[in-house]
Amino acid sequence: MTGPRYTPLIDTLPSTVPFVGPETQERRMGHPFAARLGANENGFGPSPRAIAAMAAAAGEAWKYGDPENYELKAALAARHGCRPENIVVGEGIDGLLGYLCRLVIAPGDAVVTSEGGYPTFNFHVSGFGGVLHKVPYAGDAEDPEALLALAAQIVPKLIYIANPDNPMGSHHPGATIAAMVPRVPEGSLLIVDEAYVELAPEGTEAPIDADDPRVIRMRTFSKAHGLAGARVGYAIGAAPLIAAFDKIRNHFGMSRIGQAGALAALTDTTWLAYMRRLIGASRDRIGAIARENGLVPLPSATNFVAIDCGRDGAFARAVLAELTSAGIFVRMPGVAPLDRCIRVSCGPEAEVEAFAAALPGALSRARAAQ
Amino acid sequence: MTGPRYTPLIDTLPSTVPFVGPETQERRMGHPFAARLGANENGFGPSPRAIAAMAAAAGEAWKYGDPENYELKAALAARHGCRPENIVVGEGIDGLLGYLCRLVIAPGDAVVTSEGGYPTFNFHVSGFGGVLHKVPYAGDAEDPEALLALAAQIVPKLIYIANPDNPMGSHHPGATIAAMVPRVPEGSLLIVDEAYVELAPEGTEAPIDADDPRVIRMRTFSKAHGLAGARVGYAIGAAPLIAAFDKIRNHFGMSRIGQAGALAALTDTTWLAYMRRLIGASRDRIGAIARENGLVPLPSATNFVAIDCGRDGAFARAVLAELTSAGIFVRMPGVAPLDRCIRVSCGPEAEVEAFAAALPGALSRARAAQ
Repeated sequence: MTGPRYTPLIDTLPSTVPFVGPETQERRMGHPFAARLGANENGFGPSPRAIAAMAAAAGEAWKYGDPENYELKAALAARHGCRPENIVVGEGIDGLLGYLCRLVIAPGDAVVTSEGGYPTFNFHVSGFGGVLHKVPYAGDAEDPEALLALAAQIVPKLIYIANPDNPMGSHHPGATIAAMVPRVPEGSLLIVDEAYVELAPEGTEAPIDADDPRVIRMRTFSKAHGLAGARVGYAIGAAPLIAAFDKIRNHFGMSRIGQAGALAALTDTTWLAYMRRLIGASRDRIGAIARENGLVPLPSATNFVAIDCGRDGAFARAVLAELTSAGIFVRMPGVAPLDRCIRVSCGPEAEVEAFAAALPGALSRARAAQ
Repeated sequence: MTGPRYTPLIDTLPSTVPFVGPETQERRMGHPFAARLGANENGFGPSPRAIAAMAAAAGEAWKYGDPENYELKAALAARHGCRPENIVVGEGIDGLLGYLCRLVIAPGDAVVTSEGGYPTFNFHVSGFGGVLHKVPYAGDAEDPEALLALAAQIVPKLIYIANPDNPMGSHHPGATIAAMVPRVPEGSLLIVDEAYVELAPEGTEAPIDADDPRVIRMRTFSKAHGLAGARVGYAIGAAPLIAAFDKIRNHFGMSRIGQAGALAALTDTTWLAYMRRLIGASRDRIGAIARENGLVPLPSATNFVAIDCGRDGAFARAVLAELTSAGIFVRMPGVAPLDRCIRVSCGPEAEVEAFAAALPGALSRARAAQ
């Protein structure tokens, strides 16, 4: 009675998870957070139109969602000026990154990303036996030149860049990202993770032909659209690549309620513009709070602000722990030198002010402990 | 510019999909179905308590779902008399079957199932390079003895049985399934897919120790609970196997709204009892309609009825096509000899009566065409 025989690959994988959820921390603490500003969720909430559509869809939840995501793909194609055949909808960008890794990564295959880049991408790469090759950030930004230089050497299956970046909030002009594409080695695929791009300055969206076979762009309803809990992401790419997802994806994996919410959110451009303004204001306020405490907020093209705590990772981790103890959920980059920062998501005024109230004490306790 | 290099396995996979959704057929026809009785959805709908919980959760959809599914697992553990460590929650049974195949199936690994068994399981097995070995049904039921005999020969990674069965609706006593477990070969894992078990006669649920490492049971909120579109399934198994899912699953893949709906549905035992009675009545009515038309309804322990059309697969396919043309969405088994049947899901009276009204004409046109 020894149970199943796992694959050799599975036996080598660790049991770690990419992120611990705030609910887990709340259960450990025995009380809820006063401010939920750690997961780059959009606490201003989804469009009322999306809420109404999801509430209406709840009564229809006995129906499976349309496995083709037809209406949502049609609306997204219209939005992006491409064909529905260029779009695959999935269970968040996380789900789509998993599917993409499964399509191209066999054990030993090389992947290029940044040291400190999105951990869940790394989780999926490793989960299929891929080998991560990392380049450092250039300052606080992912480094297209370094990524391309390493890619030219090792011709990886995948090259990953997020623009804007998470966890630092920096961004490159979309033209810089588009200029990477002709330099992608033959047989490599560039992933451009644009999870936060709706919140970035005009011109950050990479002007890339949807049918270009060298690149796939990832988008989500989790950030600007405030629908993280509905689990709707999508990818834009060449039709043959998009069709390949059908070989393996969970065809009935999408929530019908999520489909309805995303479709409604997409039509509410007024709400999206409102979100951009609220988030911009919140970004500025978080920056001001940082400066009032003698810290340096990094420029952000996202719905979060990385705050340089001015010392090393150990100090930032101490500040984070103090904030957590004070009921403030924030996160921080995992590796040096990025880990001199804490990362604070934009959110409603009451939660941001709870952070403001907790920060001075957290800093002084962290300093006293050093 | 040739695009990405897929894995050797992916290159071998076909682009077929397990099921075409009714929405796809509706778009082809240019009008909606009058009766949606093909996907074994529960048209009586979810508990009002679940609908209210999902509608309430819609406004909170900006939060990611709890990646640990803590509350839902706790409630399920209480329901099943096991520990939360024995339960993994996923994006429907389909999603969990995919994860399970990924855990154990490497290219070339053997899997035992029934000829005509659940196609989506086969999709996932093939999707990881597994080799399907199939035994025939015994009459209209999956055959535990044949499955075990073949398993003893080839010692597969996985052995799949659904109880009650889909697509025929037959069932074995739970004791028969439990008696399979000691005969599972060392190194094999028995999957017991109990998607429909809440709708089956008392005693169909297999009395299996959750910590037995030789078996994993699959359950869903899609059928009796009427939450197919919310995408919540779960598996019950030994803690080390359940923990292995954490190595690979999409930790933030669950919809927060679905989590809320499932938790509320689980508490509404009165609604579940009501569903059992409505579905039982609908089952009887579908059987009567079949007999009124000179056809033979098979006994069903599920929310659907397989109707033996009395001739071969070509005839049943013709009947199905005629029903589809008449606006009635039903499905049928894919392989002989099961494919002498059409499969009609239970549902609201108006839809079942639309089927009743359409069936005589469909039969006569199908007969005329032969």
